Amino acid sequence: LTSKLPHVGTTIFTRMSQLAAETGALNLSQGFPDFDGPQALRDAVGRHIAAGHNQYAAMTGLPALREQVAAKIARCYGRSVSADAELTITPGATQAIFCAIQALIHPGDEVIVFDPSYDSYEPSVELAGGRCVHVPLALADFAIDWQRLQDALSPRTRLIILNSPHNPSGALISGAELDRLAALIRERDIYLISDEVYEHLVFDGVAHASVLAHEELYRRAFVVSSFGKTYHVTGWKTGYVVAPPALTAELRKVHQYVSFCGVTPLQWALADFMSEYPEHVEELPAFYQSKRDLFCDLLANSRFRFRRTTGTYFQLVDYSAIRPDLDDVAMAEWLTREHGVAAIPVSVFYQQPPAELRLVRFCFAKREDTLRQAAEKLCAV
Amino acid sequence: LTSKLPHVGTTIFTRMSQLAAETGALNLSQGFPDFDGPQALRDAVGRHIAAGHNQYAAMTGLPALREQVAAKIARCYGRSVSADAELTITPGATQAIFCAIQALIHPGDEVIVFDPSYDSYEPSVELAGGRCVHVPLALADFAIDWQRLQDALSPRTRLIILNSPHNPSGALISGAELDRLAALIRERDIYLISDEVYEHLVFDGVAHASVLAHEELYRRAFVVSSFGKTYHVTGWKTGYVVAPPALTAELRKVHQYVSFCGVTPLQWALADFMSEYPEHVEELPAFYQSKRDLFCDLLANSRFRFRRTTGTYFQLVDYSAIRPDLDDVAMAEWLTREHGVAAIPVSVFYQQPPAELRLVRFCFAKREDTLRQAAEKLCAV
Ligand SMILES: CSCCC(=O)C(=O)O
Ligand SMILES: CSCCC(=O)C(=O)O
Repeated sequence: LTSKLPHVGTTIFTRMSQLAAETGALNLSQGFPDFDGPQALRDAVGRHIAAGHNQYAAMTGLPALREQVAAKIARCYGRSVSADAELTITPGATQAIFCAIQALIHPGDEVIVFDPSYDSYEPSVELAGGRCVHVPLALADFAIDWQRLQDALSPRTRLIILNSPHNPSGALISGAELDRLAALIRERDIYLISDEVYEHLVFDGVAHASVLAHEELYRRAFVVSSFGKTYHVTGWKTGYVVAPPALTAELRKVHQYVSFCGVTPLQWALADFMSEYPEHVEELPAFYQSKRDLFCDLLANSRFRFRRTTGTYFQLVDYSAIRPDLDDVAMAEWLTREHGVAAIPVSVFYQQPPAELRLVRFCFAKREDTLRQAAEKLCAV
Repeated sequence: LTSKLPHVGTTIFTRMSQLAAETGALNLSQGFPDFDGPQALRDAVGRHIAAGHNQYAAMTGLPALREQVAAKIARCYGRSVSADAELTITPGATQAIFCAIQALIHPGDEVIVFDPSYDSYEPSVELAGGRCVHVPLALADFAIDWQRLQDALSPRTRLIILNSPHNPSGALISGAELDRLAALIRERDIYLISDEVYEHLVFDGVAHASVLAHEELYRRAFVVSSFGKTYHVTGWKTGYVVAPPALTAELRKVHQYVSFCGVTPLQWALADFMSEYPEHVEELPAFYQSKRDLFCDLLANSRFRFRRTTGTYFQLVDYSAIRPDLDDVAMAEWLTREHGVAAIPVSVFYQQPPAELRLVRFCFAKREDTLRQAAEKLCAV
């Protein structure tokens, strides 16, 4: 059997979570909360399962849930999207991204990804017969290097994958950067996937510049988000993708054969909860900002160096004052085994990691006691 | 945007279910029960959601669920599979099939599909850059035509997709046919996907000949099944795939980027239920056979002609004594609009439907009163 993905091993998230479990370390590696989603949301699932909502949902997603998402988008980004023609519910945001790539990329097409970038993008592009062109973000602040981006464009460039708030760095793309991007690709036949799964996790009063709020870019974009991230239920594997009607039509052709539809009772529960507690998303920034601040305040007494993250539930830390001899993969393992806190190395998000990179990522979507225990261990390093 | 799937429209299942909803017809088209899964199974979901099982599952599937599936396979087919190395839980059987195709098929590869065949196979092969070679089954009994199969093989043939019990016909592949297939491909570099989602729906005391029970074929096979079909919860979108370790390793590389994992609380609930009620699968044949027999007994008074199905929850009927002038797509619409019973036309499962085909498919996974009402309407046709 000739492998379709010869360079791929088991994801870093699986490997680090397994190592954490084996060693009994606090798991601040793979991104998921160690607390639960809202009680009302969880209760709603049992209610809908009892009510008999257990057969196939509509292929495009439960209409009531699509209506709620459309309402949220109108509220948050001032865009009126058609729940029927522009919105599709998928079994997770990863799958939304996969399907959008499959719908867009023909063999030989080039796709721009900014490094560091989420690990699913490149294999998904490869499976579609495309080729990723990696454009490193500035190491200082993870901003787009416009010269490098421009140099990377070719007549074969068909797609650019954006991710803001950015995993693993937490960096945000600004509205001005979106304008600049729009100008750059205006005359070109290039589409966008905007991975905005952390859209509601932005801090310090900064607003998330969604592609949904950008008139020109949205016309050629698939915007992806995740109920799992927003409602603290990553194991529900439910996400969605918003795109103009013509793009949505192509995405659905793929989606209907990759999975056909998402899980019915979870979609009902999410629809109920979104209609009853629309304020949930508005409360998220403060909720996660206080976790970030607790973790960072405690870590101020450590030998790690960092700038507070502006988005996502990830905090990067520089460990070069501690173990400059270790590369970040070795450092993440060492922290897990020797200090009882699992982290994600950042180099795995790069095609060619910078030699000077000395960063690991912690997930602070954790209970206060977990964060305190982790910080205590990390301050002892 | 150049479509990746230019020939694909909305699936027949979505279209007929929509037409049924619009017209108020009894929906015997898309295959799903109008009754619910077992109470104990449904109750278990709420319990696990309350217990906090709401974050990512293991990428390969919940270990407890994989253990239960391995135990069931040992019981039903006498094969001992490794829950760790040979079993993967996926968000639905459709996705298991999609991922297996993506893992196997390189651009230019040929894939044998038997017509009529489930509608997801061909677009999935196309997305992988492969090409389907269609081998029609005998119209009389939907058995494999060995001469046509042999003629269809080429040096580019990489995969054969089997489906037994067969959707839409209900036909079963026998153990002797599996032997013959093994002999045919013995010297060739050909893999199998065996779509066995209706594995437990076989009637009249016949045993399902699973590829899992076939020593030689299993070595090169992905065997796919569905919790949704077996436990009457199609909307839970949870399935699994069994394959030898080397094949499983390649499948998981794809699966981890298509979806990463299945839904956590549903996997816990299924694991509980399978361990508490292992007899469920043994009771399924009688349960569905009595529905088949009720429906067929009542339909004996109609002008439809049919032979009772031997597997799946689908019954094909020949309508040539009623409206020979209508093709089956028109007939399915006419039955829905004029007689209040929605059906699936069979020609949509073919690349080149036989001109003489006058068959529609009814799903009898319905409550007794639904079947009685439907039969009454159909007898009036
Ligand atoms: C699907 S596991 C990875 C979760 C995640 O988004 C992350 O840790 O970056
Ligand atoms: C995923 S909708 C189709 C359900 C089904 O298997 C059928 O009706 O054949």
